[in-house]
Amino acid sequence: MESFFSFLEKRVDDCSSLLCVGLDPHTAELEYPTAASARDFCLNLVKQTAPYAAAFKPNAAFFEVFGADGWTALKDVINAIKEESHKHGSKIPIILDAKRGDIASTAEAYAKSAFENLGADCITLSPYLGKDSIDPFLNYPEKGVFLLCKTSNAGSGDLQDVSVAGADGHPPLPLYEHVAHLAQTWNTKNNIGLVVGATHLDAMKRVRVAAPDLWFLAPGVGTQGGDLESALRAGLRQDGRGMLINVSRGISRSNDPRKAAAEIRDQILNIKRELKYKAH
Amino acid sequence: MESFFSFLEKRVDDCSSLLCVGLDPHTAELEYPTAASARDFCLNLVKQTAPYAAAFKPNAAFFEVFGADGWTALKDVINAIKEESHKHGSKIPIILDAKRGDIASTAEAYAKSAFENLGADCITLSPYLGKDSIDPFLNYPEKGVFLLCKTSNAGSGDLQDVSVAGADGHPPLPLYEHVAHLAQTWNTKNNIGLVVGATHLDAMKRVRVAAPDLWFLAPGVGTQGGDLESALRAGLRQDGRGMLINVSRGISRSNDPRKAAAEIRDQILNIKRELKYKAH
Repeated sequence: MESFFSFLEKRVDDCSSLLCVGLDPHTAELEYPTAASARDFCLNLVKQTAPYAAAFKPNAAFFEVFGADGWTALKDVINAIKEESHKHGSKIPIILDAKRGDIASTAEAYAKSAFENLGADCITLSPYLGKDSIDPFLNYPEKGVFLLCKTSNAGSGDLQDVSVAGADGHPPLPLYEHVAHLAQTWNTKNNIGLVVGATHLDAMKRVRVAAPDLWFLAPGVGTQGGDLESALRAGLRQDGRGMLINVSRGISRSNDPRKAAAEIRDQILNIKRELKYKAH
Repeated sequence: MESFFSFLEKRVDDCSSLLCVGLDPHTAELEYPTAASARDFCLNLVKQTAPYAAAFKPNAAFFEVFGADGWTALKDVINAIKEESHKHGSKIPIILDAKRGDIASTAEAYAKSAFENLGADCITLSPYLGKDSIDPFLNYPEKGVFLLCKTSNAGSGDLQDVSVAGADGHPPLPLYEHVAHLAQTWNTKNNIGLVVGATHLDAMKRVRVAAPDLWFLAPGVGTQGGDLESALRAGLRQDGRGMLINVSRGISRSNDPRKAAAEIRDQILNIKRELKYKAH
Protein backbone atom coordinates (compact mmCIF):
# COMPACT_ATOMS: atom_id res chain seq x y z
CA MET A 1 0.00 0.00 0.00
CA GLU A 2 1.21 3.50 -0.90
CA SER A 3 2.31 5.59 2.08
CA PHE A 4 0.98 9.12 2.51
CA PHE A 5 4.26 10.78 1.59
CA SER A 6 4.67 8.66 -1.55
CA PHE A 7 1.18 9.78 -2.52
CA LEU A 8 2.07 13.42 -1.78
CA GLU A 9 5.31 13.19 -3.78
CA LYS A 10 3.45 11.80 -6.76
CA ARG A 11 1.07 14.76 -6.65
CA VAL A 12 3.95 17.21 -6.16
CA ASP A 13 5.58 15.87 -9.31
CA ASP A 14 2.29 15.79 -11.26
CA CYS A 15 1.58 19.48 -10.68
CA SER A 16 5.17 20.71 -10.25
CA SER A 17 4.03 22.46 -7.13
CA LEU A 18 4.89 22.69 -3.44
CA LEU A 19 1.89 24.92 -2.74
CA CYS A 20 -0.58 23.81 -0.08
CA VAL A 21 -3.79 25.81 -0.36
CA GLY A 22 -5.16 26.54 3.12
CA LEU A 23 -8.95 26.54 3.36
CA ASP A 24 -9.70 28.84 6.30
CA PRO A 25 -13.26 30.09 6.00
CA HIS A 26 -12.96 32.58 8.84
CA THR A 27 -16.25 34.42 9.30
CA ALA A 28 -14.49 37.71 8.44
CA GLU A 29 -13.85 36.27 4.96
CA LEU A 30 -17.43 35.16 4.33
CA GLU A 31 -20.39 36.83 2.70
CA TYR A 32 -22.62 35.54 5.51
CA PRO A 33 -21.52 33.98 8.84
CA THR A 34 -23.03 30.60 7.98
CA ALA A 35 -21.82 27.07 7.30
CA ALA A 36 -23.22 27.28 3.76
CA SER A 37 -21.18 30.39 3.11
CA ALA A 38 -18.06 28.70 4.54
CA ARG A 39 -18.63 25.74 2.22
CA ASP A 40 -19.14 27.93 -0.85
CA PHE A 41 -16.04 29.97 0.00
CA CYS A 42 -13.99 26.77 0.05
CA LEU A 43 -15.62 25.18 -3.00
CA ASN A 44 -14.74 28.26 -5.05
CA LEU A 45 -11.14 28.18 -3.84
CA VAL A 46 -10.85 24.45 -4.58
CA LYS A 47 -12.20 24.85 -8.09
CA GLN A 48 -9.96 27.79 -8.92
CA THR A 49 -6.70 26.58 -7.40
CA ALA A 50 -6.81 22.79 -7.90
CA PRO A 51 -4.38 22.76 -10.87
CA TYR A 52 -1.68 24.39 -8.73
CA ALA A 53 -2.35 22.72 -5.38
CA ALA A 54 0.01 20.01 -4.21
CA ALA A 55 -2.42 19.65 -1.30
CA PHE A 56 -5.44 21.28 0.30
CA LYS A 57 -5.55 22.02 4.01
CA PRO A 58 -8.99 22.74 5.48
CA ASN A 59 -8.81 23.97 9.07
CA ALA A 60 -11.35 22.21 11.32
CA ALA A 61 -11.87 25.21 13.64
CA PHE A 62 -13.58 27.33 11.00
CA PHE A 63 -16.11 24.58 10.37
CA GLU A 64 -16.51 23.44 13.97
CA VAL A 65 -17.54 26.98 14.91
CA PHE A 66 -20.78 26.36 12.97
CA GLY A 67 -21.57 23.19 14.91
CA ALA A 68 -23.24 20.27 13.14
CA ASP A 69 -23.82 22.32 9.95
CA GLY A 70 -20.14 23.19 9.89
CA TRP A 71 -19.20 19.54 10.15
CA THR A 72 -21.44 18.77 7.17
CA ALA A 73 -19.82 21.63 5.24
CA LEU A 74 -16.34 20.27 6.02
CA LYS A 75 -17.31 16.88 4.64
CA ASP A 76 -18.78 18.56 1.53
CA VAL A 77 -15.50 20.42 0.99
CA ILE A 78 -13.45 17.23 1.33
CA ASN A 79 -15.74 15.45 -1.13
CA ALA A 80 -15.44 18.37 -3.56
CA ILE A 81 -11.65 18.13 -3.45
CA LYS A 82 -11.91 14.45 -4.35
CA GLU A 83 -14.24 15.19 -7.27
CA GLU A 84 -11.94 17.95 -8.49
CA SER A 85 -9.01 15.51 -8.23
CA HIS A 86 -10.81 13.06 -10.50
CA LYS A 87 -11.37 15.78 -13.10
CA HIS A 88 -7.67 16.59 -13.14
CA GLY A 89 -6.68 12.93 -13.23
CA SER A 90 -4.32 13.35 -10.27
CA LYS A 91 -5.42 12.81 -6.69
CA ILE A 92 -4.84 15.84 -4.45
CA PRO A 93 -3.95 15.03 -0.82
CA ILE A 94 -6.21 16.52 1.86
CA ILE A 95 -4.55 17.55 5.12
CA LEU A 96 -7.06 18.14 7.92
CA ASP A 97 -5.58 20.89 10.08
CA ALA A 98 -7.05 19.86 13.43
CA LYS A 99 -4.05 19.82 15.81
CA ARG A 100 -5.66 17.03 17.79
CA GLY A 101 -3.89 15.13 20.56
CA ASP A 102 -5.35 12.59 22.97
CA ILE A 103 -4.67 9.09 24.25
CA ALA A 104 -5.74 5.47 23.73
CA SER A 105 -9.34 4.95 22.59
CA THR A 106 -9.88 8.72 22.42
CA ALA A 107 -7.04 9.09 19.91
CA GLU A 108 -8.54 6.17 18.00
CA ALA A 109 -11.85 8.03 17.80
CA TYR A 110 -10.15 11.16 16.45
CA ALA A 111 -8.29 9.06 13.87
CA LYS A 112 -11.49 7.36 12.79
CA SER A 113 -13.25 10.73 12.56
CA ALA A 114 -10.53 12.30 10.37
CA PHE A 115 -9.57 9.36 8.17
CA GLU A 116 -12.72 7.25 7.88
CA ASN A 117 -15.67 9.56 8.41
CA LEU A 118 -14.33 12.77 6.90
CA GLY A 119 -12.02 11.00 4.46
CA ALA A 120 -8.93 13.18 5.00
CA ASP A 121 -5.55 11.76 3.96
CA CYS A 122 -3.49 13.40 6.66
CA ILE A 123 -3.96 15.31 9.91
CA THR A 124 -1.97 17.78 12.02
CA LEU A 125 -1.33 16.59 15.59
CA SER A 126 0.23 17.93 18.77
CA PRO A 127 3.26 15.91 19.98
CA TYR A 128 2.78 16.88 23.66
CA LEU A 129 1.18 13.58 24.73
CA GLY A 130 3.95 11.39 23.25
CA LYS A 131 4.33 8.57 20.77
CA ASP A 132 1.48 6.38 22.05
CA SER A 133 -0.95 9.25 21.37
CA ILE A 134 0.15 9.29 17.73
CA ASP A 135 0.17 5.53 17.11
CA PRO A 136 -3.59 5.21 16.49
CA PHE A 137 -3.11 7.57 13.52
CA LEU A 138 0.09 5.88 12.29
CA ASN A 139 -1.75 2.57 12.28
CA TYR A 140 -3.49 3.67 9.09
CA PRO A 141 -0.72 2.69 6.64
CA GLU A 142 -1.91 4.93 3.78
CA LYS A 143 -2.57 8.01 5.93
CA GLY A 144 -0.15 10.61 7.31
CA VAL A 145 0.40 13.06 10.17
CA PHE A 146 2.21 16.37 10.53
CA LEU A 147 3.36 16.88 14.11
CA LEU A 148 3.57 20.41 15.48
CA CYS A 149 7.27 21.18 15.84
CA LYS A 150 7.98 24.94 15.65
CA THR A 151 4.78 26.88 15.04
CA SER A 152 4.59 30.27 13.32
CA ASN A 153 3.13 32.33 16.18
CA ALA A 154 5.07 34.80 18.33
CA GLY A 155 4.35 32.86 21.54
CA SER A 156 5.59 29.54 20.16
CA GLY A 157 8.80 29.89 22.15
CA ASP A 158 7.06 29.60 25.54
CA LEU A 159 7.40 25.83 25.30
CA GLN A 160 8.98 25.06 21.96
CA ASP A 161 12.19 27.05 22.60
CA VAL A 162 12.91 25.85 26.14
CA SER A 163 16.38 24.39 26.42
CA VAL A 164 16.41 20.62 26.79
CA ALA A 165 19.40 18.69 28.10
CA GLY A 166 21.19 16.90 25.25
CA ALA A 167 21.53 13.10 25.28
CA ASP A 168 24.91 11.40 25.84
CA GLY A 169 26.91 14.56 26.48
CA HIS A 170 25.50 16.44 23.50
CA PRO A 171 24.85 20.16 24.06
CA PRO A 172 21.38 21.37 25.08
CA LEU A 173 18.87 21.88 22.30
CA PRO A 174 15.52 23.64 22.00
CA LEU A 175 12.45 21.48 22.59
CA TYR A 176 11.29 21.82 18.96
CA GLU A 177 14.58 20.26 17.85
CA HIS A 178 14.05 17.39 20.29
CA VAL A 179 10.62 16.89 18.70
CA ALA A 180 12.26 16.86 15.26
CA HIS A 181 14.72 14.16 16.37
CA LEU A 182 11.89 12.09 17.85
CA ALA A 183 9.82 12.42 14.68
CA GLN A 184 12.75 11.41 12.48
CA THR A 185 13.19 8.31 14.68
CA TRP A 186 9.47 7.51 14.82
CA ASN A 187 9.05 7.78 11.03
CA THR A 188 9.52 4.10 10.21
CA LYS A 189 6.53 3.96 7.85
CA ASN A 190 7.00 7.18 5.84
CA ASN A 191 3.93 8.77 7.38
CA ILE A 192 5.24 11.50 9.73
CA GLY A 193 6.00 15.10 8.77
CA LEU A 194 6.51 18.28 10.80
CA VAL A 195 4.81 21.67 11.04
CA VAL A 196 7.58 24.28 10.90
CA GLY A 197 6.61 27.96 10.61
CA ALA A 198 8.24 30.01 7.86
CA THR A 199 8.45 32.89 10.36
CA HIS A 200 11.34 31.24 12.27
CA LEU A 201 14.08 30.59 9.71
CA ASP A 202 16.90 29.68 12.08
CA ALA A 203 14.61 27.15 13.71
CA MET A 204 13.68 25.76 10.30
CA LYS A 205 17.37 25.27 9.43
CA ARG A 206 17.96 23.42 12.69
CA VAL A 207 14.90 21.24 12.15
CA ARG A 208 16.08 20.36 8.63
CA VAL A 209 19.41 19.17 10.06
CA ALA A 210 17.67 17.18 12.81
CA ALA A 211 15.14 15.63 10.43
CA PRO A 212 16.80 15.45 7.01
CA ASP A 213 14.18 13.11 5.53
CA LEU A 214 10.89 14.54 6.75
CA TRP A 215 8.33 16.65 4.92
CA PHE A 216 7.63 20.06 6.44
CA LEU A 217 4.27 21.80 6.37
CA ALA A 218 5.27 25.46 6.48
CA PRO A 219 2.69 28.09 7.34
CA GLY A 220 3.55 31.76 7.78
CA VAL A 221 4.64 32.86 4.29
CA GLY A 222 2.93 36.10 3.19
CA THR A 223 0.32 37.47 5.59
CA GLN A 224 2.24 36.33 8.67
CA GLY A 225 5.47 37.87 7.34
CA GLY A 226 7.55 34.87 6.24
CA ASP A 227 9.62 35.30 3.07
CA LEU A 228 9.18 32.59 0.45
CA GLU A 229 12.75 32.39 -0.86
CA SER A 230 14.29 32.42 2.62
CA ALA A 231 11.90 29.70 3.75
CA LEU A 232 12.72 27.46 0.79
CA ARG A 233 16.45 27.97 1.33
CA ALA A 234 16.06 27.01 4.98
CA GLY A 235 13.71 24.07 4.63
CA LEU A 236 13.99 22.30 1.27
CA ARG A 237 15.29 18.76 1.35
CA GLN A 238 18.37 17.74 -0.63
CA ASP A 239 16.07 16.45 -3.39
CA GLY A 240 14.37 19.87 -3.75
CA ARG A 241 11.17 18.54 -2.24
CA GLY A 242 10.20 17.92 1.42
CA MET A 243 8.34 21.16 1.95
CA LEU A 244 4.75 22.27 1.52
CA ILE A 245 4.33 26.04 1.51
CA ASN A 246 0.91 26.77 2.96
CA VAL A 247 -0.87 29.89 1.76
CA SER A 248 -4.39 30.77 2.88
CA ARG A 249 -5.30 34.48 2.92
CA GLY A 250 -2.66 35.31 0.29
CA ILE A 251 -4.86 33.36 -2.12
CA SER A 252 -8.37 33.70 -0.70
CA ARG A 253 -8.15 37.50 -0.40
CA SER A 254 -6.77 37.93 -3.91
CA ASN A 255 -9.13 39.26 -6.57
CA ASP A 256 -8.12 36.28 -8.68
CA PRO A 257 -7.31 33.23 -6.50
CA ARG A 258 -6.48 31.11 -9.56
CA LYS A 259 -3.87 33.59 -10.72
CA ALA A 260 -2.52 34.05 -7.18
CA ALA A 261 -2.07 30.27 -6.76
CA ALA A 262 -0.44 29.98 -10.21
CA GLU A 263 1.96 32.78 -9.35
CA ILE A 264 3.01 31.24 -6.04
CA ARG A 265 3.50 27.87 -7.73
CA ASP A 266 5.71 29.57 -10.34
CA GLN A 267 7.62 31.62 -7.76
CA ILE A 268 8.48 28.41 -5.94
CA LEU A 269 9.62 26.78 -9.20
CA ASN A 270 11.79 29.79 -10.07
CA ILE A 271 13.38 29.90 -6.63
CA LYS A 272 14.05 26.17 -6.77
CA ARG A 273 15.73 26.55 -10.16
CA GLU A 274 17.81 29.42 -8.86
CA LEU A 275 18.84 27.50 -5.75
CA LYS A 276 19.75 24.47 -7.80
CA TYR A 277 21.74 26.62 -10.19
CA LYS A 278 23.72 28.13 -7.33
CA ALA A 279 24.30 24.74 -5.80
CA HIS A 280 25.99 23.44 -8.94
CA MET B 1 -18.38 38.54 36.87
CA GLU B 2 -17.74 35.18 38.55
CA SER B 3 -14.61 33.40 37.35
CA PHE B 4 -14.78 29.74 36.30
CA PHE B 5 -12.98 28.46 39.36
CA SER B 6 -15.18 30.47 41.74
CA PHE B 7 -18.16 28.85 39.99
CA LEU B 8 -16.55 25.42 40.31
CA GLU B 9 -15.79 25.93 43.99
CA LYS B 10 -19.36 26.92 44.68
CA ARG B 11 -20.55 23.71 43.07
CA VAL B 12 -17.91 21.65 44.91
CA ASP B 13 -19.20 23.03 48.19
CA ASP B 14 -22.87 22.59 47.23
CA CYS B 15 -22.49 18.88 46.51
CA SER B 16 -19.55 18.13 48.82
CA SER B 17 -17.88 16.40 45.91
CA LEU B 18 -14.64 16.48 43.96
CA LEU B 19 -15.94 13.94 41.45
CA CYS B 20 -15.88 14.87 37.77
CA VAL B 21 -18.04 12.46 35.78
CA GLY B 22 -16.43 11.75 32.40
CA LEU B 23 -18.87 11.31 29.54
CA ASP B 24 -17.00 9.09 27.09
CA PRO B 25 -19.52 7.38 24.82
CA HIS B 26 -16.98 5.10 23.19
CA THR B 27 -18.69 2.90 20.61
CA ALA B 28 -17.69 -0.19 22.63
CA GLU B 29 -19.91 1.13 25.45
CA LEU B 30 -22.96 1.76 23.28
CA GLU B 31 -25.96 -0.33 22.40
CA TYR B 32 -25.67 0.82 18.79
CA PRO B 33 -22.73 2.66 17.17
CA THR B 34 -24.80 5.78 16.51
CA ALA B 35 -24.88 9.38 17.65
CA ALA B 36 -28.34 8.83 19.15
CA SER B 37 -27.01 5.96 21.23
CA ALA B 38 -24.06 8.10 22.35
CA ARG B 39 -26.47 10.83 23.39
CA ASP B 40 -28.74 8.44 25.30
CA PHE B 41 -25.75 6.84 27.02
CA CYS B 42 -24.69 10.27 28.28
CA LEU B 43 -28.18 11.49 29.18
CA ASN B 44 -28.65 8.45 31.39
CA LEU B 45 -25.31 9.04 33.13
CA VAL B 46 -26.11 12.72 33.63
CA LYS B 47 -29.51 11.97 35.15
CA GLN B 48 -28.18 9.31 37.47
CA THR B 49 -25.00 10.98 38.67
CA ALA B 50 -25.90 14.70 38.75
CA PRO B 51 -26.34 14.88 42.56
CA TYR B 52 -22.75 13.70 43.06
CA ALA B 53 -21.02 15.45 40.15
CA ALA B 54 -18.88 18.49 40.88
CA ALA B 55 -18.53 18.71 37.10
CA PHE B 56 -19.27 16.78 33.92
CA LYS B 57 -16.62 16.23 31.27
CA PRO B 58 -17.86 15.17 27.83
CA ASN B 59 -15.02 14.16 25.50
CA ALA B 60 -15.39 15.71 22.04
CA ALA B 61 -13.72 12.80 20.21
CA PHE B 62 -16.51 10.34 20.94
CA PHE B 63 -19.07 12.71 19.44
CA GLU B 64 -16.92 13.99 16.58
CA VAL B 65 -16.52 10.41 15.38
CA PHE B 66 -20.21 10.49 14.40
CA GLY B 67 -19.77 13.65 12.29
CA ALA B 68 -22.56 16.24 12.19
CA ASP B 69 -24.97 13.98 14.12
CA GLY B 70 -22.37 13.57 16.85
CA TRP B 71 -21.97 17.31 17.12
CA THR B 72 -25.74 17.65 17.58
CA ALA B 73 -25.65 14.91 20.23
CA LEU B 74 -22.86 16.74 22.08
CA LYS B 75 -24.94 19.91 22.18
CA ASP B 76 -27.96 17.90 23.40
CA VAL B 77 -25.85 16.43 26.22
CA ILE B 78 -24.59 19.86 27.27
CA ASN B 79 -28.14 21.22 27.26
CA ALA B 80 -29.31 18.23 29.32
CA ILE B 81 -26.64 18.94 31.95
CA LYS B 82 -27.91 22.52 32.18
CA GLU B 83 -31.51 21.34 32.62
CA GLU B 84 -30.46 18.84 35.24
CA SER B 85 -28.56 21.63 37.02
CA HIS B 86 -31.72 23.72 37.20
CA LYS B 87 -33.62 20.82 38.76
CA HIS B 88 -31.01 20.47 41.48
CA GLY B 89 -30.83 24.22 42.04
CA SER B 90 -27.04 24.23 41.69
CA LYS B 91 -25.30 24.81 38.36
CA ILE B 92 -22.93 22.02 37.38
CA PRO B 93 -19.83 23.11 35.43
CA ILE B 94 -19.29 21.49 32.02
CA ILE B 95 -15.70 20.84 30.97
CA LEU B 96 -15.35 20.09 27.27
CA ASP B 97 -12.46 17.67 26.94
CA ALA B 98 -11.20 18.68 23.51
CA LYS B 99 -7.45 19.23 23.99
CA ARG B 100 -7.49 21.89 21.29
CA GLY B 101 -4.54 24.13 20.52
CA ASP B 102 -4.14 26.59 17.66
CA ILE B 103 -3.19 30.22 17.07
CA ALA B 104 -4.76 33.64 16.49
CA SER B 105 -8.11 33.64 14.69
CA THR B 106 -8.14 29.84 14.62
CA ALA B 107 -7.94 29.68 18.41
CA GLU B 108 -10.70 32.30 18.54
CA ALA B 109 -12.89 30.04 16.42
CA TYR B 110 -12.27 27.07 18.74
CA ALA B 111 -13.10 29.24 21.76
CA LYS B 112 -16.29 30.46 20.14
CA SER B 113 -17.24 26.90 19.23
CA ALA B 114 -16.73 25.58 22.77
CA PHE B 115 -18.01 28.49 24.84
CA GLU B 116 -20.65 30.18 22.70
CA ASN B 117 -22.02 27.56 20.34
CA LEU B 118 -21.77 24.45 22.52
CA GLY B 119 -22.12 26.38 25.78
CA ALA B 120 -19.35 24.63 27.72
CA ASP B 121 -17.94 26.40 30.78
CA CYS B 122 -14.38 25.17 30.43
CA ILE B 123 -12.15 23.38 27.93
CA THR B 124 -8.97 21.30 28.00
CA LEU B 125 -6.12 22.74 25.90
CA SER B 126 -2.61 21.78 24.85
CA PRO B 127 0.08 24.21 26.05
CA TYR B 128 2.48 23.36 23.20
CA LEU B 129 1.74 26.51 21.13
CA GLY B 130 2.33 28.94 24.01
CA LYS B 131 0.46 31.65 25.87
CA ASP B 132 -0.85 33.53 22.86
CA SER B 133 -2.66 30.35 21.73
CA ILE B 134 -4.49 30.27 25.08
CA ASP B 135 -5.38 33.95 25.33
CA PRO B 136 -8.46 33.77 23.06
CA PHE B 137 -9.95 31.34 25.62
CA LEU B 138 -8.82 33.35 28.66
CA ASN B 139 -10.51 36.41 27.18
CA TYR B 140 -13.87 34.93 28.23
CA PRO B 141 -13.83 36.11 31.87
CA GLU B 142 -16.40 33.61 33.13
CA LYS B 143 -14.92 30.58 31.31
CA GLY B 144 -11.96 28.37 32.21
CA VAL B 145 -9.23 26.18 30.74
CA PHE B 146 -7.32 23.13 31.94
CA LEU B 147 -3.90 22.95 30.29
CA LEU B 148 -2.35 19.56 29.67
CA CYS B 149 0.57 19.27 32.08
CA LYS B 150 1.38 15.62 32.91
CA THR B 151 -1.01 13.26 31.17
CA SER B 152 -1.97 9.80 32.42
CA ASN B 153 -0.67 7.72 29.49
CA ALA B 154 2.49 5.63 29.48
CA GLY B 155 4.06 7.63 26.63
CA SER B 156 3.50 11.01 28.30
CA GLY B 157 7.20 11.16 29.21
CA ASP B 158 8.38 11.41 25.60
CA LEU B 159 7.97 15.17 25.80
CA GLN B 160 6.58 15.96 29.24
CA ASP B 161 9.50 14.42 31.16
CA VAL B 162 12.37 15.87 29.14
CA SER B 163 14.79 17.77 31.34
CA VAL B 164 14.60 21.51 30.89
CA ALA B 165 17.34 23.90 32.00
CA GLY B 166 16.32 25.76 35.18
CA ALA B 167 16.11 29.55 35.20
CA ASP B 168 18.65 31.68 37.15
CA GLY B 169 20.89 28.84 38.25
CA HIS B 170 18.02 26.63 39.45
CA PRO B 171 18.45 22.91 38.80
CA PRO B 172 16.93 21.32 35.66
CA LEU B 173 13.27 20.35 35.85
CA PRO B 174 10.94 18.17 33.78
CA LEU B 175 8.99 19.97 31.06
CA TYR B 176 5.65 19.30 32.79
CA GLU B 177 6.92 21.19 35.82
CA HIS B 178 7.94 24.09 33.60
CA VAL B 179 4.38 24.09 32.24
CA ALA B 180 3.05 24.13 35.82
CA HIS B 181 5.21 27.18 36.64
CA LEU B 182 4.05 28.96 33.48
CA ALA B 183 0.40 28.20 34.26
CA GLN B 184 0.73 29.46 37.82
CA THR B 185 2.22 32.70 36.43
CA TRP B 186 -0.35 33.03 33.65
CA ASN B 187 -3.31 32.52 36.01
CA THR B 188 -4.02 36.18 36.73
CA LYS B 189 -7.80 35.83 36.25
CA ASN B 190 -8.50 32.61 38.15
CA ASN B 191 -9.32 30.71 34.98
CA ILE B 192 -6.39 28.30 34.41
CA GLY B 193 -6.11 24.77 35.80
CA LEU B 194 -3.90 21.79 34.92
CA VAL B 195 -4.49 18.24 33.71
CA VAL B 196 -2.36 15.98 35.92
CA GLY B 197 -2.78 12.21 35.62
CA ALA B 198 -3.36 10.24 38.82
CA THR B 199 -1.09 7.54 37.38
CA HIS B 200 2.07 9.63 38.02
CA LEU B 201 2.06 10.49 41.72
CA ASP B 202 5.59 11.86 42.00
CA ALA B 203 4.85 14.17 39.12
CA MET B 204 1.61 15.25 40.78
CA LYS B 205 3.46 16.15 43.97
CA ARG B 206 5.98 18.22 42.01
CA VAL B 207 3.21 19.98 40.10
CA ARG B 208 1.41 20.81 43.37
CA VAL B 209 4.57 22.48 44.67
CA ALA B 210 5.09 24.37 41.40
CA ALA B 211 1.45 25.48 41.18
CA PRO B 212 0.13 25.69 44.75
CA ASP B 213 -3.03 27.60 43.80
CA LEU B 214 -4.25 25.83 40.69
CA TRP B 215 -7.04 23.34 40.25
CA PHE B 216 -6.04 19.94 38.85
CA LEU B 217 -8.18 17.80 36.62
CA ALA B 218 -6.95 14.31 37.45
CA PRO B 219 -7.80 11.41 35.14
CA GLY B 220 -6.43 7.91 35.64
CA VAL B 221 -8.04 6.77 38.90
CA GLY B 222 -9.60 3.33 38.62
CA THR B 223 -9.53 1.76 35.17
CA GLN B 224 -6.15 3.29 34.31
CA GLY B 225 -4.67 2.10 37.60
CA GLY B 226 -4.39 5.26 39.71
CA ASP B 227 -5.18 4.93 43.43
CA LEU B 228 -7.69 7.43 44.82
CA GLU B 229 -6.17 8.00 48.25
CA SER B 230 -2.63 8.36 46.92
CA ALA B 231 -3.81 10.79 44.29
CA LEU B 232 -5.63 12.96 46.82
CA ARG B 233 -2.60 12.93 49.12
CA ALA B 234 -0.39 14.05 46.25
CA GLY B 235 -2.63 16.64 44.67
CA LEU B 236 -5.05 18.25 47.12
CA ARG B 237 -4.53 21.91 47.79
CA GLN B 238 -3.94 23.24 51.32
CA ASP B 239 -7.65 24.08 51.55
CA GLY B 240 -8.66 20.47 50.78
CA ARG B 241 -9.96 21.44 47.36
CA GLY B 242 -8.11 22.13 44.09
CA MET B 243 -8.60 18.71 42.56
CA LEU B 244 -11.25 17.13 40.37
CA ILE B 245 -11.08 13.35 40.28
CA ASN B 246 -12.31 12.28 36.87
CA VAL B 247 -14.01 8.91 36.59
CA SER B 248 -15.54 7.66 33.36
CA ARG B 249 -15.68 3.88 32.89
CA GLY B 250 -15.62 3.26 36.65
CA ILE B 251 -19.12 4.77 36.66
CA SER B 252 -20.48 4.05 33.18
CA ARG B 253 -19.63 0.35 33.34
CA SER B 254 -21.15 -0.08 36.78
CA ASN B 255 -24.51 -1.83 37.05
CA ASP B 256 -25.68 1.14 39.08
CA PRO B 257 -23.95 4.37 37.97
CA ARG B 258 -25.81 6.42 40.58
CA LYS B 259 -24.53 4.24 43.38
CA ALA B 260 -21.03 4.14 41.88
CA ALA B 261 -20.89 7.94 41.73
CA ALA B 262 -22.23 8.28 45.28
CA GLU B 263 -19.62 5.82 46.54
CA ILE B 264 -16.73 7.66 44.89
CA ARG B 265 -18.03 10.97 46.25
CA ASP B 266 -18.15 9.43 49.73
CA GLN B 267 -14.74 7.77 49.41
CA ILE B 268 -13.24 11.15 48.56
CA LEU B 269 -14.98 12.74 51.57
CA ASN B 270 -13.72 10.01 53.88
CA ILE B 271 -10.16 10.26 52.62
CA LYS B 272 -10.26 14.04 52.98
CA ARG B 273 -11.48 13.70 56.58
CA GLU B 274 -8.76 11.19 57.29
CA LEU B 275 -6.07 13.37 55.76
CA LYS B 276 -7.27 16.41 57.65
CA TYR B 277 -7.31 14.43 60.86
CA LYS B 278 -3.72 13.34 60.33
CA ALA B 279 -2.68 16.85 59.48
CA HIS B 280 -3.95 18.24 62.80
